[in-house]
Amino acid sequence: MSVELSQLSATQAAQAIADGLISSEQLVQACLDRIREIEPQVQAWQFLDEKLALAQARARDQDRAEGRAIGVLHGIPIGIKDIIDTDDMPTEDGTSLHAGRTPANDATVVALLRAAGAVIMGKTVTTELANMTPGKTRNPQNLERSPGGSSSGSAAAVAAGMVPLAIGTQTSGSVIRPAAYCGVYGFKPTHGLISRHGILKLSRTLDTVGLFARSLEDLALLAEPLIMHDEKDFDTRPRARMQFPAMVKSEPPLPPSLAFVKTEVWDRADETTQQAFAELIEELGERCKIIELPTSLKVAWEFQRIIAEAETAFNLDLEWQKGQSVLSPSLRERLERGRSTSALSYQKAVAAIPKLIAEFDEVFDSFDAIITPSTTGTAPGLDSTGDPVFCVLWSLLGMPAVNLPFMTGVDNMPLGVQLVGARLMDARLLRTAKWLQQRVSPS
Amino acid sequence: MSVELSQLSATQAAQAIADGLISSEQLVQACLDRIREIEPQVQAWQFLDEKLALAQARARDQDRAEGRAIGVLHGIPIGIKDIIDTDDMPTEDGTSLHAGRTPANDATVVALLRAAGAVIMGKTVTTELANMTPGKTRNPQNLERSPGGSSSGSAAAVAAGMVPLAIGTQTSGSVIRPAAYCGVYGFKPTHGLISRHGILKLSRTLDTVGLFARSLEDLALLAEPLIMHDEKDFDTRPRARMQFPAMVKSEPPLPPSLAFVKTEVWDRADETTQQAFAELIEELGERCKIIELPTSLKVAWEFQRIIAEAETAFNLDLEWQKGQSVLSPSLRERLERGRSTSALSYQKAVAAIPKLIAEFDEVFDSFDAIITPSTTGTAPGLDSTGDPVFCVLWSLLGMPAVNLPFMTGVDNMPLGVQLVGARLMDARLLRTAKWLQQRVSPS
Repeated sequence: MSVELSQLSATQAAQAIADGLISSEQLVQACLDRIREIEPQVQAWQFLDEKLALAQARARDQDRAEGRAIGVLHGIPIGIKDIIDTDDMPTEDGTSLHAGRTPANDATVVALLRAAGAVIMGKTVTTELANMTPGKTRNPQNLERSPGGSSSGSAAAVAAGMVPLAIGTQTSGSVIRPAAYCGVYGFKPTHGLISRHGILKLSRTLDTVGLFARSLEDLALLAEPLIMHDEKDFDTRPRARMQFPAMVKSEPPLPPSLAFVKTEVWDRADETTQQAFAELIEELGERCKIIELPTSLKVAWEFQRIIAEAETAFNLDLEWQKGQSVLSPSLRERLERGRSTSALSYQKAVAAIPKLIAEFDEVFDSFDAIITPSTTGTAPGLDSTGDPVFCVLWSLLGMPAVNLPFMTGVDNMPLGVQLVGARLMDARLLRTAKWLQQRVSPS
Repeated sequence: MSVELSQLSATQAAQAIADGLISSEQLVQACLDRIREIEPQVQAWQFLDEKLALAQARARDQDRAEGRAIGVLHGIPIGIKDIIDTDDMPTEDGTSLHAGRTPANDATVVALLRAAGAVIMGKTVTTELANMTPGKTRNPQNLERSPGGSSSGSAAAVAAGMVPLAIGTQTSGSVIRPAAYCGVYGFKPTHGLISRHGILKLSRTLDTVGLFARSLEDLALLAEPLIMHDEKDFDTRPRARMQFPAMVKSEPPLPPSLAFVKTEVWDRADETTQQAFAELIEELGERCKIIELPTSLKVAWEFQRIIAEAETAFNLDLEWQKGQSVLSPSLRERLERGRSTSALSYQKAVAAIPKLIAEFDEVFDSFDAIITPSTTGTAPGLDSTGDPVFCVLWSLLGMPAVNLPFMTGVDNMPLGVQLVGARLMDARLLRTAKWLQQRVSPS
């Protein structure tokens, strides 16, 4: 019974709890059992207090018993990347510099999750300060492989069936890449859609909260309550609520059309990946057209690097000042590059973004989404979290992206398909993703 | 008759035109006569086509004759700083690099002026690229003195009675300082209140459109139609319309209280200025209290310099690349400093602004406005546009500031009193200014 409960989708589990078929406590206990079973191998968690998780679950069951309002995530356990503040658990940011850090307040996204009834299961492993140096987590599909990063534990915990949902963040490729490597669904919404208040800041221009789940329906369920204007994050805006679950359930009015783009970095994809995508495009037939991006986009990767490095160096200035001896050599180098970036090249890179976004107006006039690899191939070994190069462009442009885990590559490991949509067309992107999934692997 | 018409306030003239007592053509002709008389000495205009101005005036008179809607500035001539685009006149930015530049479109602020019925009289002299190197304009109060800058011609044209109203811009002290030196009213609204689309960009963080007039009522009349959300200027926001003329006419519900702040740069004010302010504060008695600013504000001047230089270097990159031999040595030096600024110190300076603004929360809880000098003293000689140091803090913080020309300093030249208000309390600031003026020089 327990193991099965832990494998329910969040949508199923939320319904079952609302209907009184199962309790949140049963669900959380089942997930804790699953964690006990495989955490020694996977090591997805930085902090997990079984009692605290169960106490939340019992409180949610009590809510229901006493007739209080039931949120859309009522009683559902969720993993939170350990750079996202929680007022009842430490948040250590993947560095010994912040060991024992106990924030006084929940990040906005955590507060919204609690308001929707979620059980904050624990804190998932991040790479060092959400950069490139791996944490302890292993890929549940193959323990000798990287889960990807920087949201390593969130992707691995969902892939391993420890929790149905998890939250991560992406600055370069930190949601889509681990989702792809671990074989789960990952969703990086439009930049500025989900508040980043209370989250370790690397780059205001690029940082985006992202979601992990084992189905598109679950991504939609999780996304809906998190999208809100937050005066504490200047990049969020007041907007009409996006109807995620309804959109994912609905049929597209016309069969979607996809634009396959190789991008400048196509050569970095391994042979199996290139071959797998060639076959996928073939299979999609007239629903997919291969297009070339304007050459003006060649600079995008360099611009993303400049912005990520300069803003990270600014935001981690204190860590660099106080903790150079503790930082990994690769992060130190990265921060040094960021510190020596000129304000001139930084401003040029930031100013280019709206112009580069406009280059896609025509693409999104003609196509519902872009289809492209999520990664250069399947998960690498444990000494690296892999190459974010296929995510970088969409991080720079703040466009919504989703990883679909329906292909396999080298060694039969998961190979991610990335769909990218126009900014603020997030719910439609998930609907297009649903259509693609049904088309490619009809259930 | 002509000379008298040109000296009408904009408020009076607009009423007289609306009532059919005078025509716009008569008013514009009177102003053109005045310009013919003294432009050879003052040299406030970079471009002025009498026929074009009169044609606009006749068209506005035609509107009225045919019963079309009358705007609040209907038929009123206005001078436009020559860094603000106009679709029917050149915009040369005070540099031979842009000689003969003829923009295809009006800047948003010009379009709003035209929509309110104003007659775009001509383009007023700016310093070189709105920086520090003087243009040809002289101070109408003393032709051997600087009119200040960078909005030199706008301030001088209003002071000389050539036009009742003019538009300028401020990045450091380019509205308040020339208004003070020339003895007119100058108003720099809250940053982001008036769109800068179509205006030579120096610094997104600091650039602000400002207004010149010969009375507070006229500033209010001019401000109201210019405040609008413009999607082409990302720092503007949708807001409720501010009722400027009504506010300026109204009595404050309680007698305002003013906070006199010397700021870190008090020592730069000359003796006469220090003495004049001591007497003014004395005269204001219990309505004015001397307060000390937190020491955290000491860094503000340095931060403003870093931002202004780094952003100007970015925005004038093309001019630097193509025109180094044409740029003045002082501007070249400034751009070189900007180009060598690091992204790290630039980001630190920008990030400090909200914290520094918050330091004033208590001040504005207790006081209606800050009172402080506009400049270090009266206008200097023609080889400099003077020192913006008393404007820099308020430019950095984006707070509304107004120059009141009711004092005199060395050589009986105008000495400006600057009132500064809380952000977005612009209309209230003008009401407080009106109160102060009546209190100090009852009519």
